[in-house]
Amino acid sequence: MESQRDREDTEPQPAVMSSGRLEALSDGVFAIAITLLVLDLAVPSREESRDGGLAAALARQWPAYFAYLVSFLIIGIIWVNHHTVFDKVRRVDRPVLFANLGVLLAISVIPFPTRLLAEYLTAGRDAHVAAAVYSATMLVMGLAFGALWVAITRDAALLHEHLDPAVSRTALRRFGLGNIFYLATIGLSFVSAIATLAVHAALAIYYCFDQLPTGPQARARRRR
Amino acid sequence: MESQRDREDTEPQPAVMSSGRLEALSDGVFAIAITLLVLDLAVPSREESRDGGLAAALARQWPAYFAYLVSFLIIGIIWVNHHTVFDKVRRVDRPVLFANLGVLLAISVIPFPTRLLAEYLTAGRDAHVAAAVYSATMLVMGLAFGALWVAITRDAALLHEHLDPAVSRTALRRFGLGNIFYLATIGLSFVSAIATLAVHAALAIYYCFDQLPTGPQARARRRR
Amino acid sequence: MESQRDREDTEPQPAVMSSGRLEALSDGVFAIAITLLVLDLAVPSREESRDGGLAAALARQWPAYFAYLVSFLIIGIIWVNHHTVFDKVRRVDRPVLFANLGVLLAISVIPFPTRLLAEYLTAGRDAHVAAAVYSATMLVMGLAFGALWVAITRDAALLHEHLDPAVSRTALRRFGLGNIFYLATIGLSFVSAIATLAVHAALAIYYCFDQLPTGPQARARRRR
Amino acid sequence: MESQRDREDTEPQPAVMSSGRLEALSDGVFAIAITLLVLDLAVPSREESRDGGLAAALARQWPAYFAYLVSFLIIGIIWVNHHTVFDKVRRVDRPVLFANLGVLLAISVIPFPTRLLAEYLTAGRDAHVAAAVYSATMLVMGLAFGALWVAITRDAALLHEHLDPAVSRTALRRFGLGNIFYLATIGLSFVSAIATLAVHAALAIYYCFDQLPTGPQARARRRR
Repeated sequence: MESQRDREDTEPQPAVMSSGRLEALSDGVFAIAITLLVLDLAVPSREESRDGGLAAALARQWPAYFAYLVSFLIIGIIWVNHHTVFDKVRRVDRPVLFANLGVLLAISVIPFPTRLLAEYLTAGRDAHVAAAVYSATMLVMGLAFGALWVAITRDAALLHEHLDPAVSRTALRRFGLGNIFYLATIGLSFVSAIATLAVHAALAIYYCFDQLPTGPQARARRRR
Repeated sequence: MESQRDREDTEPQPAVMSSGRLEALSDGVFAIAITLLVLDLAVPSREESRDGGLAAALARQWPAYFAYLVSFLIIGIIWVNHHTVFDKVRRVDRPVLFANLGVLLAISVIPFPTRLLAEYLTAGRDAHVAAAVYSATMLVMGLAFGALWVAITRDAALLHEHLDPAVSRTALRRFGLGNIFYLATIGLSFVSAIATLAVHAALAIYYCFDQLPTGPQARARRRR
Repeated sequence: MESQRDREDTEPQPAVMSSGRLEALSDGVFAIAITLLVLDLAVPSREESRDGGLAAALARQWPAYFAYLVSFLIIGIIWVNHHTVFDKVRRVDRPVLFANLGVLLAISVIPFPTRLLAEYLTAGRDAHVAAAVYSATMLVMGLAFGALWVAITRDAALLHEHLDPAVSRTALRRFGLGNIFYLATIGLSFVSAIATLAVHAALAIYYCFDQLPTGPQARARRRR
Repeated sequence: MESQRDREDTEPQPAVMSSGRLEALSDGVFAIAITLLVLDLAVPSREESRDGGLAAALARQWPAYFAYLVSFLIIGIIWVNHHTVFDKVRRVDRPVLFANLGVLLAISVIPFPTRLLAEYLTAGRDAHVAAAVYSATMLVMGLAFGALWVAITRDAALLHEHLDPAVSRTALRRFGLGNIFYLATIGLSFVSAIATLAVHAALAIYYCFDQLPTGPQARARRRR
């Protein structure tokens, strides 16, 4: 009973809510941010297509496609991990709501550095600045996600079942490691903007496989 | 049983509906409005970056980031409060639906005064007009939220459980107080646009902590 | 049991589905269309604000605000009525899915004639064309909504409970009457674009009160 | 019990989740992509309306309306089929989540080739390139949908009930056939861009009627 998305047990405690609407708002923000990215892909004007035709004009836009793909992948992965985290959550209180707003702020802002990098990826010195802004956004996102994890795990009453403190700490250490990588990409930005974007793609693919640790028991039960 | 999002008890009464779809539409509008704000962050053109590079061009855009952050925070807080209010609601009738549309109108329009303020925050005399439009939008939002609260609490049959009239009046008085503050920010706009935006940020942070009053009983049950 | 959003009874019949995801997609389209309208409100450029300041430049944009408000109201009302109709629906089949896509097409296109009317409302002869396009969009929307109603009521198995054929016919006649009004506004467009928009506002407000007919029995049960 | 969207059976298996949030994100992306298409319909500028008035200027935009309608229809159909597929799904694991992200990538990118085709449909030689990009997007979408089907049907534990391998293979063959058609439209693009768009409309209408195969048994139970 307790794990249904029912409301009985949330009413008497206005400050502790079921996570249904938080997930609905979050899914909305993820869906919009991931879809708004397409507005950054500009149709070449007739003038831009004059030299070498439309095909060449489209080909010259490769930084926009590259940035689009990496940002799509990143938002997608974060959504999967957000999903994985909230599958453990039974109730949310105000600290969790605000920590989650922090994550949503970072997610919803991603189309801006993506556009910036698409515009400046091959612009010489300014490419470094654009890549650093992109990397800094990812660092903020990583820190916000870590803060969300702390907000959720600080109170066992918010979770569906007991979470082993060791597991929680391992997850936190992994988040921390990710943030060190993001910090490193800010430095890398001043070496090569293109390499920075490639590293972000690689980090996202790494997170595809990396997930919250699951014990052998959980793994055994999976296919039950 | 009665507090489930079931449909049995709503069918025979076409004019009184469960609040599920109202929350879905509202979450959609909140999610889109909060994410559309990012479209107001313009990538500096190559020309704008000529003097001092991209970093300087981005730094010159600080009013846009400031307005973005404040509006994000405001929409986020209103969402949390909307969530808190509808956790008490069992059914909605047409007056509630239309009062809620009023709130959504105010929410969905926020990206416009945000863009206006971002563009004119440092524009001398016009900054005052932009800040006044921003403040007036918040006042309309505050009034619409108050009207929604009246529409919800006017009929006990719409709520999950009895709401103490004193509690309801206290909440209404707090909404009223907020509106007086919003009214005051319209006046402040003609003194300083930047101070006005800072006050809106402070008001939003104040609303983070301020919530619907909860009795000591409810507080005691929270961590049960 | 039968009225829950469960899946047991939908699985064995792939062509007859529960209405949950149809409502989710529809709420998404409604929420986005109603929020995208704000993108039509353009911030006056610094040049446009030169004569008489920003306040005068904003005041000159009144057609955009008027069109915005009317379209917001119209989409809001249609959403309320869509909500009211689907509260009666238990399952959807492919004809209903496609009739609903027709309604969503009309809804999602509304920001375009709104922008058109905002731009041309005071543009002399072209205002008539813009108003006619706006009115024609509403007519298409009205026809699509009527088709959706026919698709839903053609098969009693799709509904939660028996719907009196007389009630269904009365509702259809009202939809038909609305469409005759919409047709008339196309004619009115060539007399006065501003009057046409005002009539659309009045029609929307009329639909606020007009709803699916409810028998005295249903009315009696409402406040039970 | 097992077919409810409950959480009990998903918690102990972090890597195998209920499909609720996947559907929520997907519905969000579908709803946004289908509604963003309207941003591609540009209001003719006052200058463009000088020759022959607004009516003529709007008429000259017919490629944009044509592309809009076809893309709307395509996204709508894919949504219906996505809905049909996930009605069979009980749980999703990470391969399904990532295959679904592939489908969402293809869906969310559709507004870009639509805008491209709207701009270049009557632009002579470049029209062929635009049509080929449009067709290639549909091919990618078809391949992603096929991969999603393989990811879902590879593990019977993810489905609500046993799916006849013959049925699964038939569905896969149909997806494959669709992809051969999409591949053929890339070739057709270099003959006629307008014919290519018309064929995409025809393919979409064909998919309206084509659905996952249902046995006579299922059909008999439909109206139970």
